[in-house]
Amino acid sequence: MAVGVGIIGLGNVGSGTLQILIENAKSIQEKLGFPLELKTVCSRNVQQKKLPVMDGSVVRTSDWRDVISNPEIDIVVELIGGTGTAAHIIEAALRQRKSVVTANKELMALRGAEFWNIANQNGVNIAMEASVAGGIPIHTVLREGIAGDRILELYGVLNGTSNFILTEIEKSGAAFESVVAEAQQLGYAEADPSADVDGLDARSKLVILAALAFGERLTPADIYTEGIRRVMPVDFQYAHQLKHTIRLLCLARETGQGLLLSVRPSLIPQSAILAHVKGAYNAIWIRGAYGEDTFYYGRGAGSKPTGVAIVSDLMRVAREIRFGSPERVSPFAHERLGEYKPLLMATQELPYYLRFRVEDKAGIIATLATILAKHDIGIDAVLQLPREDWRDLPFVVTTEPAKEQSIRDAILDIGAADFLVEPPFAMPMERGF
Amino acid sequence: MAVGVGIIGLGNVGSGTLQILIENAKSIQEKLGFPLELKTVCSRNVQQKKLPVMDGSVVRTSDWRDVISNPEIDIVVELIGGTGTAAHIIEAALRQRKSVVTANKELMALRGAEFWNIANQNGVNIAMEASVAGGIPIHTVLREGIAGDRILELYGVLNGTSNFILTEIEKSGAAFESVVAEAQQLGYAEADPSADVDGLDARSKLVILAALAFGERLTPADIYTEGIRRVMPVDFQYAHQLKHTIRLLCLARETGQGLLLSVRPSLIPQSAILAHVKGAYNAIWIRGAYGEDTFYYGRGAGSKPTGVAIVSDLMRVAREIRFGSPERVSPFAHERLGEYKPLLMATQELPYYLRFRVEDKAGIIATLATILAKHDIGIDAVLQLPREDWRDLPFVVTTEPAKEQSIRDAILDIGAADFLVEPPFAMPMERGF
Repeated sequence: MAVGVGIIGLGNVGSGTLQILIENAKSIQEKLGFPLELKTVCSRNVQQKKLPVMDGSVVRTSDWRDVISNPEIDIVVELIGGTGTAAHIIEAALRQRKSVVTANKELMALRGAEFWNIANQNGVNIAMEASVAGGIPIHTVLREGIAGDRILELYGVLNGTSNFILTEIEKSGAAFESVVAEAQQLGYAEADPSADVDGLDARSKLVILAALAFGERLTPADIYTEGIRRVMPVDFQYAHQLKHTIRLLCLARETGQGLLLSVRPSLIPQSAILAHVKGAYNAIWIRGAYGEDTFYYGRGAGSKPTGVAIVSDLMRVAREIRFGSPERVSPFAHERLGEYKPLLMATQELPYYLRFRVEDKAGIIATLATILAKHDIGIDAVLQLPREDWRDLPFVVTTEPAKEQSIRDAILDIGAADFLVEPPFAMPMERGF
Repeated sequence: MAVGVGIIGLGNVGSGTLQILIENAKSIQEKLGFPLELKTVCSRNVQQKKLPVMDGSVVRTSDWRDVISNPEIDIVVELIGGTGTAAHIIEAALRQRKSVVTANKELMALRGAEFWNIANQNGVNIAMEASVAGGIPIHTVLREGIAGDRILELYGVLNGTSNFILTEIEKSGAAFESVVAEAQQLGYAEADPSADVDGLDARSKLVILAALAFGERLTPADIYTEGIRRVMPVDFQYAHQLKHTIRLLCLARETGQGLLLSVRPSLIPQSAILAHVKGAYNAIWIRGAYGEDTFYYGRGAGSKPTGVAIVSDLMRVAREIRFGSPERVSPFAHERLGEYKPLLMATQELPYYLRFRVEDKAGIIATLATILAKHDIGIDAVLQLPREDWRDLPFVVTTEPAKEQSIRDAILDIGAADFLVEPPFAMPMERGF
């Protein structure tokens, strides 16, 4: 009557999952009406791992093939991450007619639809709640909770590390590099933080959510992506003057002509509920054609919150196995055939925030205004903080709504000016809240 | 291949549901892989109703028995509300082996577990996402999305009308009665607003959520309930001084000794994300043992947001029917046997906000302080707004954490004092955010 589970990968999320499966076993069994039975745990260094007290019958192995080949295991939990061995494990498990639960955003963003098809052909399931936004059950929400709606816009703060860094810069006024060093010390950022601060992790998550929300087959390369390395403390001061703040915003917007998709630092109004997402939290704001706006918020990562997502997926898949019905709600099933090309970000029309660092010379504003006018960009405001200690005078121009292509062209033109200390830094000012 | 649907009740939610089923049919069929086929619509005055353009084959009737007896209908949508005819309809449908989708919070709070058992005996399902928090898929979240967690606390703003009234009082400083009149004109409040402003509607919703979150069988009468009629504009001024605001808060808290459950106006810190829930919105804040805090926000009511909940339930139940597997995730299935008695609210220990309206006499504070001290209640602060135009001098005492029973006893004692214009008004100050 029990459903057998094997876990491959005992890092951060694996140990959280293990803890919940053991500590919360009674509640899980009460809810399901039958137990989830842990059969095997697998990790490269399983003999050295400090694991919680488990039933003596749980097998420990360092070879993932022991999990795949065990006929008592119905569901394989893949938690090693990456796109190499993890892909072999998932494909082998599905072909052995074992369902898979995974937290692997990178692999699911790249090859999720393919694995879904293999799962379907083998009458099993692949579940991936944990791959996006840790403790927020956003996959369940989109797959079932608001399935009856037609999604128009989805905005996400999907990378906790970047959000921690941005809100620390906002709070302390410290520079990007020193905040990253602090985040690394606290364990919020990796030794090599690029996947987080360059937006790549957030991009994978947006691919997975957009597939589910809009039914289009996307690849990470389709998404315009820009990280947070150029955001300076002074940008927050200007943003606050404009009653905005800055977040690494994931955006998917149905325009009528196609989808606009991006991951980039953006100004959002302080009045928006998304502006209250601080530290390592994640959030998603959705606008539906019928349900209007809904908002979801929680821990973006962490051993136990992500473990809840894994265990909740295990319960759902176990129920299907126990009652003989393979899950039919696919994260990819209603995708249209073939790959989809979203709209070019250059077609987006929004007000922009442009920050300039210049040497003190006469006539700079006049030069900029002339170039912007040439590209049909109206100036909304020119802001300069009343401070003496800026050697390179960062000041800001906000524009009327303009095509991103015009902004890019204008920046290229301006780039030739001899007064610039560095290229201008542009962020869209989102208003869709 | 299609799954047949009949709708009983074509009021606000019924017409929203109809609109989505018709306008969004293509997207629904793409996601499901088969169509939802509307067979019959039923309403007392169906001939006079202005309905959207429907397939000519859709039968219109004013007799709900036509829906129940139609063998082509697999799912009955009950949208007439109330606990009378609606109960007959639901029971008859389930006994005819038709699944039911309902928005009826009052009936589900009273008799949901009973209907679930009848559904189970007949191998069909009863779904009720629309009964709580309109456009927020909170039932799905608790039933599946975070099923692996153990819930410790659940806070909700679950009545949009009360929240609209409170936030209008906060914004405009107008009195309760005039804001209610405004809400009635805008269609946000009923001619008789008691179900909303006295907390009864919110209480039904809390019963349904608490059953799912904590697995206890509760009845509305078990929940300490207090409406918002006594909240005055001056309470917001004092709350703001304390960096708090006031909401009609639904609370379910696992204390280790049992559940504390209440619906009552409460002070919540302005820094809490719940404090940003304004107007007719709903929100739920959940703390899990493993997932930590998650937050869900959206439209609390309205024809189309609630329609999304109905249609999403229809899709889920249709899938089960189509693939031959009755849903096994019960909103009540993991309830323990027998009715559960939650803890008495009087055992709650929190700081309290006490507002007094008194005639101007000497020694009032001394008298109050003596009585509070007698009941072991420490005073945290005494606040009086610097205003001349209060004839009856409302002032506020905030206390150190104290047992609610002590607060009640002290209020009784104070009630005997000759300087009171009206009985003291007490609200807990929630800190669990």
